[in-house]
Amino acid sequence: MKKADLILTDISYILTMDENLTEYKNADIVIKDGKIIDIGENKKNEYFGKTITGKNKIAIPGLINTHTHAAMTLLRGYGSDNPLKVWLEEYIWPAEGKLVSYEFVKDGTDTAIYEMLRNGITTFVDMYFYEDAVAQSVKESGIRAVLCTGILDFPTPGAKTPDEGLQKTEEFIKQFEKDENVFPAVGPHAPYTCSPQTLKKAFELAEKYDTLYHIHVSETQFEVNDIKERYGNTPVKHLKQLGVLNERVLAAHMVHPTEEEIDIIAENKVKIAHCPESNLKLASGVAPIPKMIEKGIVVGIGTDGTASNDDLDIIGEISTAAKLHKGYNLDPTVLNARQALKMATIEGAKAIRKEDKLGSLETGKNADIVLIDINDPHLQPLFDPYTQIVYSSNGKDVDTVIISGELKVLNKKVLVFDKEHLIEKANYWKNKVLEK
Amino acid sequence: MKKADLILTDISYILTMDENLTEYKNADIVIKDGKIIDIGENKKNEYFGKTITGKNKIAIPGLINTHTHAAMTLLRGYGSDNPLKVWLEEYIWPAEGKLVSYEFVKDGTDTAIYEMLRNGITTFVDMYFYEDAVAQSVKESGIRAVLCTGILDFPTPGAKTPDEGLQKTEEFIKQFEKDENVFPAVGPHAPYTCSPQTLKKAFELAEKYDTLYHIHVSETQFEVNDIKERYGNTPVKHLKQLGVLNERVLAAHMVHPTEEEIDIIAENKVKIAHCPESNLKLASGVAPIPKMIEKGIVVGIGTDGTASNDDLDIIGEISTAAKLHKGYNLDPTVLNARQALKMATIEGAKAIRKEDKLGSLETGKNADIVLIDINDPHLQPLFDPYTQIVYSSNGKDVDTVIISGELKVLNKKVLVFDKEHLIEKANYWKNKVLEK
Repeated sequence: MKKADLILTDISYILTMDENLTEYKNADIVIKDGKIIDIGENKKNEYFGKTITGKNKIAIPGLINTHTHAAMTLLRGYGSDNPLKVWLEEYIWPAEGKLVSYEFVKDGTDTAIYEMLRNGITTFVDMYFYEDAVAQSVKESGIRAVLCTGILDFPTPGAKTPDEGLQKTEEFIKQFEKDENVFPAVGPHAPYTCSPQTLKKAFELAEKYDTLYHIHVSETQFEVNDIKERYGNTPVKHLKQLGVLNERVLAAHMVHPTEEEIDIIAENKVKIAHCPESNLKLASGVAPIPKMIEKGIVVGIGTDGTASNDDLDIIGEISTAAKLHKGYNLDPTVLNARQALKMATIEGAKAIRKEDKLGSLETGKNADIVLIDINDPHLQPLFDPYTQIVYSSNGKDVDTVIISGELKVLNKKVLVFDKEHLIEKANYWKNKVLEK
Repeated sequence: MKKADLILTDISYILTMDENLTEYKNADIVIKDGKIIDIGENKKNEYFGKTITGKNKIAIPGLINTHTHAAMTLLRGYGSDNPLKVWLEEYIWPAEGKLVSYEFVKDGTDTAIYEMLRNGITTFVDMYFYEDAVAQSVKESGIRAVLCTGILDFPTPGAKTPDEGLQKTEEFIKQFEKDENVFPAVGPHAPYTCSPQTLKKAFELAEKYDTLYHIHVSETQFEVNDIKERYGNTPVKHLKQLGVLNERVLAAHMVHPTEEEIDIIAENKVKIAHCPESNLKLASGVAPIPKMIEKGIVVGIGTDGTASNDDLDIIGEISTAAKLHKGYNLDPTVLNARQALKMATIEGAKAIRKEDKLGSLETGKNADIVLIDINDPHLQPLFDPYTQIVYSSNGKDVDTVIISGELKVLNKKVLVFDKEHLIEKANYWKNKVLEK
């Protein structure tokens, strides 16, 4: 008998999401020092330590949300259903201009992390301002996150100039370079808000520190037209010409790439953060995801911020994606349940270049594990566990969340942050938003 | 002080969904003899009786699911992600051929009703076989349902010929003519499975007993082509020519109507059951719902059966609808949160011609009420209750469900049927499905 820190026993189904999509039934996962040290049938008898039963549960890797703006949770639903220009100019931007501060970002991110944990998200990618506040929330909660300050050519809540933004980014990178939870990155906002010079400087910084280069690209037809007019090129070609496209780039949205641009994305190993619900709600359109996957492009899934979605439920997001692309392409075999769940796990890990540690349940990887409760009539009968997760469940069916071997959610209760305190804070900021 | 049976007090928001979308804050709903007898602020002081607090809750009318095949819950997820022909011919039809019986339908409907109640559905429209078994489930649970046997030109589990199906339908109508929970209807399956003669006979029956005429219409491009080939007309025009279109008709799907057909639907006051998730998952397409609503057509929302969706969550369904039509029409103002919630309540009631009793919270109407729990960070801050329900919540946020003044769900626990027993039955039937 060997000592373990935590043993998950008798798990009804384990979907490892490894390269072969290995599955186990009625099997165990053994955790030590924050890592998975054993997995499979009859493993529990070889170890002693704290145990949790996985009976009537499906184990999957912790879910990865590849694009969000966590703090915007405090603007959830604010000004919804308006034309985009009205929504931004009369609601979101004035509220942000008035309120975004270290405190706003900290409180908003706390609320977002609570919701993400509840829904089985163990890693998220964030672009916003005051990322030091986001890092603080991440460290307090024990979740993981790729964090980058949004760099724009006009003054932002965190920086008066793009150079100041880049400088703060560099300091932030140095601070968290070796961290196990905070993965610092460079975040040039978009081709239409960053000059070629800013985009290139940001790229050099990402190269220098070997970080992700996270950017919004080709989100709307407006952006495509704007870039064409200013630079005579579509957005992806514009970035290619600037020399800022490589395997380090995680491009959010990518709704309107041309065929040629899809090839450029594939050749340069650019990764995509697909945000279908945000793209629908903001009327940006439907990204050609099945075609991108066919070309071998890594596609993760993202919720985007709750101001434009308005939830942080990755299972809901892959459910929408799996159905949407079938209906849009008039083909019910497109983006099947296995592919959809891959987007939220191993492909998400590849999108943030952490597939050596995250994204699948394998010996040696970080013990980031989600147990989904299937002991409910709405998930029965169960013919196929992938199908059941993608088409019949949602974040509320997540029962247990483990990060680095530590319990963050148990019996559907979030164990970090105080719920009532979060609601009080949300109300405090709501009143501030509405104050004249 | 007047006597009441149940008083819901201090409800944070009441969305009545009446003609003016009247709203109340921190108000009460008073129930007697299964009806709402009073509603508004400070009403609780005028009555005595059992009380339930509505603090931190939003009250909305019981949700109406205008199209499903409840018993198919036992085939949830079976054969998903296959081409339509393979799914039907190798999975669904053989399983149905082998198993559909009174027992199968009773057990499947019990499971479906449990899930529907959990998600706040208080009325559903069902078309399947052995509707006497469905009626039994409905009566045992106290939910409401429009029930019709699917009538087809080929032998079905319930009837060897369409005439036998019509005869059984007539007996069923007579049995439940005056019932408060079971609303019998006539259910010719579709224009491509019913001859003109069958469609007309069914229409005469609906006229004779003043019932709904529930039919699948224009679900797929295949159907449109098939009807064109056989009758030289598109489906709606074909039905119009047969004289089987009036205010009694509830047409499910309606994905591919022509402009001319939309006008015919409007002129004849035909109602639509929109099933966006099923239409996406089966790759049928996207129905022109915003255009139909613009023309004044009554559009309710439906989940379709769980074999093709795969859940019975009406809040999830309106959330998908509200986002889908924005993205598909490239206009973020299309199908706003108020319109989406109307589809699930008052428009649903109009779709089944029960708007005198159901679909809004008004004095004199049936006390079919849903309380949604907003005391959770994922529903905070709350700027607008409609927005929060449609874009941020799902069925799992339903806390309390009341039908005819009787509690069916309380504190998120379903009070009818035994959960473990339902799961056992689902497993029993799963094994039967998989038996060679």
